[in-house]
Amino acid sequence: MKKAVVLLSGGLDSTTCMAVAQDEGYDLYALSFDYGQRHNKELENAVRVAKYYRVKDHRVFKIGYVEGNALTDRSVDVPDYNGGDAIPVTYVPARNILFLSYAAGYAESIGAEAVFIGVSSVDYSGYPDCRPEFIEAFQRVLEVGTKMGVEGNPIRIRTPLINLSKAQTILLGQSLGAPYHLTTSCYRGGEVACGVCDSCTLRLKGFKEAGIKDPIDYEKV
Amino acid sequence: MKKAVVLLSGGLDSTTCMAVAQDEGYDLYALSFDYGQRHNKELENAVRVAKYYRVKDHRVFKIGYVEGNALTDRSVDVPDYNGGDAIPVTYVPARNILFLSYAAGYAESIGAEAVFIGVSSVDYSGYPDCRPEFIEAFQRVLEVGTKMGVEGNPIRIRTPLINLSKAQTILLGQSLGAPYHLTTSCYRGGEVACGVCDSCTLRLKGFKEAGIKDPIDYEKV
Repeated sequence: MKKAVVLLSGGLDSTTCMAVAQDEGYDLYALSFDYGQRHNKELENAVRVAKYYRVKDHRVFKIGYVEGNALTDRSVDVPDYNGGDAIPVTYVPARNILFLSYAAGYAESIGAEAVFIGVSSVDYSGYPDCRPEFIEAFQRVLEVGTKMGVEGNPIRIRTPLINLSKAQTILLGQSLGAPYHLTTSCYRGGEVACGVCDSCTLRLKGFKEAGIKDPIDYEKV
Repeated sequence: MKKAVVLLSGGLDSTTCMAVAQDEGYDLYALSFDYGQRHNKELENAVRVAKYYRVKDHRVFKIGYVEGNALTDRSVDVPDYNGGDAIPVTYVPARNILFLSYAAGYAESIGAEAVFIGVSSVDYSGYPDCRPEFIEAFQRVLEVGTKMGVEGNPIRIRTPLINLSKAQTILLGQSLGAPYHLTTSCYRGGEVACGVCDSCTLRLKGFKEAGIKDPIDYEKV
């Protein structure tokens, strides 16, 4: 069986990646991180989604705290959505670089041919590490900097959502039976999603555009 | 003051990088890893070298165990040096990728302009992630995938040893007063260096070629 490592946050995008990888016939290996998030809700969801997909293994790595950003630093407030283009305070230094590095190490250690990551450059909210240029640059790192790469068989970074809007992602996941009722995407990470942070706003807008009712509850909508 | 993050294993090469970065006038921030090495001797040395250089901060991240290699898996024996060209069993999947990712996150969080890593492609013993192609590819990742990069001020990966033989590295470090008496480079990691693994063999050959006596003791020489 061919193997894929899927980066699984427990949010809507990574759950859609699980659905795509399963649909392509991969044996699934989920990879999540405890990076000092405010919300362990996210990790709880990841565990539930991994169980739903009966993954072969689910690793959760605890990774070091990086200061000065709103997602890991309790002294910085998570802002409401403001529609701006600047890199937001929710940017975590080198986050996807670190996630892909762990995924590459994990994939190489189990002989997986692909790593799935749910980045999108369409509903791009200012994160440099969600853009195609970044993914292409990291692909090159895997080609020249790993044993599998040097041997002519590099791990492939798969980004099935990179050209999809949130609505298109939801329609794709819906068609593949993705269990969105198990997911939340809220940056504030309370028991119930806030409905007003960047991430909730994008999710709600996506469901509305897709013409589908979001199966989860929100505090304010 | 300009800041540099120095990847510090406590071996000869990373200690030489500390000397170079200090000589260039950087405020030093050391970064080490506990990745389930056989030898905590290595980490002890890193702490001693960091103290010697009076670093502003020394972070030690515990990172996940990756199976199937001789440096972290106690079921795989560390081989003696055999002079071969193949990627050795001491290869750790994605190790330098992971190290540079942490260094990038750390550097960005403190606003450091440079990351020093002591790789060399001259005494290259088969590791794909010690070659210039790899460093160039990772530099590109930092340019397109980080906030500092997108803002036109990417973190620079500095590899002062990349074109140096082990003997040349030792001569450089010697000229800058690097405290080699505090370092060991043994893959087996006992209290006294073994003298016969790949890493000890390269070190001893380097000191011999440099015409300098290695200040540390060995079990067999």
